[in-house]
Amino acid sequence: MRRTTRTAEDLRALAAVARGEAPADLYLAGGRVLNVYSGEVLEANVAVARGRVAYVGRRRTMVGEQTTVLDVTGRLLVPGYFDPHCHPGAMYTPVTLAEAVLPRGTVAAVADTLFPLVYADPARLEQVLQDLSRLPFHYYWFLRLHAQAPLPQEAERFAPDRLDRLLHLEPVRTAGEVTRWPLLHAGDPRLTELVAAVLAAGRRVEGHAPGVGWERLQALVAAGVSSDHEAITAEQALDRLRAGLYVMLRHSSLRGDLPALAGVASVARAFSGRLMLTPDGPDATFIADHGYMDAVIRQALLAGVDPVAAYQMATLNPATYYGLDEELGGIAPGRLADLNVLVDLRDPTPERVIAGGRLVAEEGRLTAPIEAPEWVSAFPRRYAPTWRPDPSLFAPPRGAAIALHLQNAVITRRRDLTLSDGPPPGVQVLTLLAPDGRWVARALLSGFADRLGGLACTYTVGGGMAVAGDDPHDMAAAARRTLELGGGVVAVEDGQVRFELPLPIGGLMSPEPLHRLAARVRELGAFLRARGYRHEDPTYTLFFLSFDSLPDLRLTALGIWDARAGRVLVPREER
Amino acid sequence: MRRTTRTAEDLRALAAVARGEAPADLYLAGGRVLNVYSGEVLEANVAVARGRVAYVGRRRTMVGEQTTVLDVTGRLLVPGYFDPHCHPGAMYTPVTLAEAVLPRGTVAAVADTLFPLVYADPARLEQVLQDLSRLPFHYYWFLRLHAQAPLPQEAERFAPDRLDRLLHLEPVRTAGEVTRWPLLHAGDPRLTELVAAVLAAGRRVEGHAPGVGWERLQALVAAGVSSDHEAITAEQALDRLRAGLYVMLRHSSLRGDLPALAGVASVARAFSGRLMLTPDGPDATFIADHGYMDAVIRQALLAGVDPVAAYQMATLNPATYYGLDEELGGIAPGRLADLNVLVDLRDPTPERVIAGGRLVAEEGRLTAPIEAPEWVSAFPRRYAPTWRPDPSLFAPPRGAAIALHLQNAVITRRRDLTLSDGPPPGVQVLTLLAPDGRWVARALLSGFADRLGGLACTYTVGGGMAVAGDDPHDMAAAARRTLELGGGVVAVEDGQVRFELPLPIGGLMSPEPLHRLAARVRELGAFLRARGYRHEDPTYTLFFLSFDSLPDLRLTALGIWDARAGRVLVPREER
Repeated sequence: MRRTTRTAEDLRALAAVARGEAPADLYLAGGRVLNVYSGEVLEANVAVARGRVAYVGRRRTMVGEQTTVLDVTGRLLVPGYFDPHCHPGAMYTPVTLAEAVLPRGTVAAVADTLFPLVYADPARLEQVLQDLSRLPFHYYWFLRLHAQAPLPQEAERFAPDRLDRLLHLEPVRTAGEVTRWPLLHAGDPRLTELVAAVLAAGRRVEGHAPGVGWERLQALVAAGVSSDHEAITAEQALDRLRAGLYVMLRHSSLRGDLPALAGVASVARAFSGRLMLTPDGPDATFIADHGYMDAVIRQALLAGVDPVAAYQMATLNPATYYGLDEELGGIAPGRLADLNVLVDLRDPTPERVIAGGRLVAEEGRLTAPIEAPEWVSAFPRRYAPTWRPDPSLFAPPRGAAIALHLQNAVITRRRDLTLSDGPPPGVQVLTLLAPDGRWVARALLSGFADRLGGLACTYTVGGGMAVAGDDPHDMAAAARRTLELGGGVVAVEDGQVRFELPLPIGGLMSPEPLHRLAARVRELGAFLRARGYRHEDPTYTLFFLSFDSLPDLRLTALGIWDARAGRVLVPREER
Repeated sequence: MRRTTRTAEDLRALAAVARGEAPADLYLAGGRVLNVYSGEVLEANVAVARGRVAYVGRRRTMVGEQTTVLDVTGRLLVPGYFDPHCHPGAMYTPVTLAEAVLPRGTVAAVADTLFPLVYADPARLEQVLQDLSRLPFHYYWFLRLHAQAPLPQEAERFAPDRLDRLLHLEPVRTAGEVTRWPLLHAGDPRLTELVAAVLAAGRRVEGHAPGVGWERLQALVAAGVSSDHEAITAEQALDRLRAGLYVMLRHSSLRGDLPALAGVASVARAFSGRLMLTPDGPDATFIADHGYMDAVIRQALLAGVDPVAAYQMATLNPATYYGLDEELGGIAPGRLADLNVLVDLRDPTPERVIAGGRLVAEEGRLTAPIEAPEWVSAFPRRYAPTWRPDPSLFAPPRGAAIALHLQNAVITRRRDLTLSDGPPPGVQVLTLLAPDGRWVARALLSGFADRLGGLACTYTVGGGMAVAGDDPHDMAAAARRTLELGGGVVAVEDGQVRFELPLPIGGLMSPEPLHRLAARVRELGAFLRARGYRHEDPTYTLFFLSFDSLPDLRLTALGIWDARAGRVLVPREER
């Protein structure tokens, strides 16, 4: 695994520019630089060549006739932001995400492989990961070691020899997130062997241990985990830090924890090198409204984190954690010339963004579209009107039935009901359907909406189409329309389609620009809130209903799943 | 390159101990732990299994019948010390060094490969490096990319394909130190290609840039260097830090710079993660008198460095720099159980040392000898009485002659003399002889001693036998005795051997325990000081007389060498 991709030619060319014996491509003149290595703001010009910083200092001898000189007088240069834990498929795609966050100053991310692993054509997966890593946005990857919900194709998609091959791809820097941490904690042989293979490949292991306290952390760290992003209090963050973990402080659409977490940066202020910031896959509206890593840095500043430390947590610290500190995370010779021009250290949203040594964004807008590789076709169409969902499929049960009652947007608890004449008010029929209709898992949904004709959604971690509603006809209509769209979210009321959002890429992602997607997601939120939805984010609710590691009950491809017990309560039905 | 060598079996076994379901091998009870991750001192017990920490906390459920319980009440546990820049051949050997410093709390080092690269049997080199890495002291290696003096065998010993193979050995973590930094700065194609190969192997590049200021640092960093240990003022250290380098603060027998350097740790106090401490190959007497990394930490504390930061610079920071933070540098689950029991944070010299999960030293003494592999025979005998140095070889020149005048222990300047009847007082004849006598390089030596019969020394970076003196007969006798010893240091006066120190391993190293070697080196110092030597260390003076990158003049295997110009002034004579 390389710390930098500089070639011999790069090294010689950069040194020549630094010596002033060759012209720079770009010269940023007259500004101040946030030096994340020494923690200072210093006056300095920055010379760029071959997409990298060649020189930082006072000299101008590398300004030649072809050098573009950019006056940044009165401005502050900071390293481009680096998201250590990115989910580039929260309805947006790796490409639309990059297009949206690059103008906000985020230039690199270590990103989730879950969707490509499960849904991309296996023969094209490696190429897709490599291609996406060559965008003018630096994608590195975290490799999942297991699915996030019981999946029919899990054994094959997560076969150890397949994972081992993927693990050795250059841009794969870590495995994780290990959402099935109880297995690792307990010494599960298969997962432990996989983690050992990850360590043998020199990669990190990203944990996911919500609510896990000191004692259980010990066994997880002993078993190979090296970081965690699930602390929601300063005490949990400090426990993780003390246990030897790197800690990602999360602030996102779903959990805005930074005010609570910031305390750890004060306690460990002098030693904040093992803290990072992440938005952990926020939804499109959060990005459109607040930004991305810039939004998280802003929250850290508001929460009282030392400003230099806040920027380090978003630049140098993730780069160091992933062994990329010679490539990213600071403004110094040899580093990739990805940096942000700020008006002020207090405002992390950049005025201009330099990436790959070129000005790529100004005032929040890309100056040129991102040239993306063809990768979408690697995701075969999963949903199609090859079968016809029928209202009978969505008929309410009679007698004893189990409801998933939402405590908040994602956490459920079991609610037992006895139905004689349909569900009581505020309880919907919930089904998870195979893309081809061959199986159905059934439950009830409580605490989601007061009323709901039919809502279908293929954006689910469990890999099927979730359909919820009061009216079997509306539900069937929503499901049918969703199949026609090739996947997506569709709401039907009184026989009319009231909302539709196509997600044709794997039934999970929209190719639309992120701001347009955000507008649609906002619409969906308004639609559902008008029908009684009262949590933060309906898209997360639908997505995580099948996530096998969240308490208590889940509806998965195996049926109703007891996440605490790790077993099926009511199996799915074959059709 | 692995971050940790834990196997699947290790992971499962350690997790089981952490859960309290399997007994620990060792349990350190009742002490406090310096948590280098959070910067705190916390009360905690430490459970150890399979040579690693399995658990840190309050529970005792992993104490079983076979568990050795060590009461450390009232004591402080700190991570074993890690030297990021070690020269394990300053007359001592990797084994005698480990035996000497392990009881002082140093448990790991990234060590110089210069001597094995040049003088070990090439067919056995890899095995020697691997074997020495398996001592109960963790040797990692820095791979030299070139010699430190012009050597006849340099092209072959430092052939790119040979280096590339060695570079991929697991314990090789970095290349360097690049003493010929001006070549890299200037873009020398061969050296730049080598550095690119190092980067492609995911290794670091250790610099060596004494006196180099901001401007030239820029080109060096652009050309691939990632650290430096040659700062001698806080300003130089800060410049290096600001330029994106990791900075090793040095305090050794030759240069006691910490009082001056400590300032950088105050300026960059909140961001000290990129600072490290090193003794940089101190001589045996320094180690015997003051210790090793413990001595450097002590100096840092005396110089006012924040105590936690001082320990981090000797533990976590080097481990992080070399990608070994999951293996070393902290007391946390999964880490190697190499740690020190201190009476007080203010006294870094340990009362007891745990290494590999066992008590290995108490009160400064090993509790059992180190089991060393057979490695000495990999260094073929280089000096033997197969030829007879004759007094005529050491006859003083007549007419114009060039003297190397010592400014201090290692830096020389040119002194031009015209001799009619032998050298003036305080100037000796100096020769460098091929081990087999086939060539001789000649100069004069000034500022070394007032008088000196004959002194021969094979501990030279230039790979020959240096002989200095006033009396050709004494010089010849010293050279002859040195050949008989298989290499070493011999002083002859009035035809009598007055001092001899055999260095039979490559003519460079003594297999004697370090404290005995130190006594001999002290004797040599006293002998020479009585004859007018007034610098810190005569062994370093003799060693570095042929070091091609130190100003100004050097006597090398090619002849008198102008280090600034990089050329031979007076060639050697063939015999």
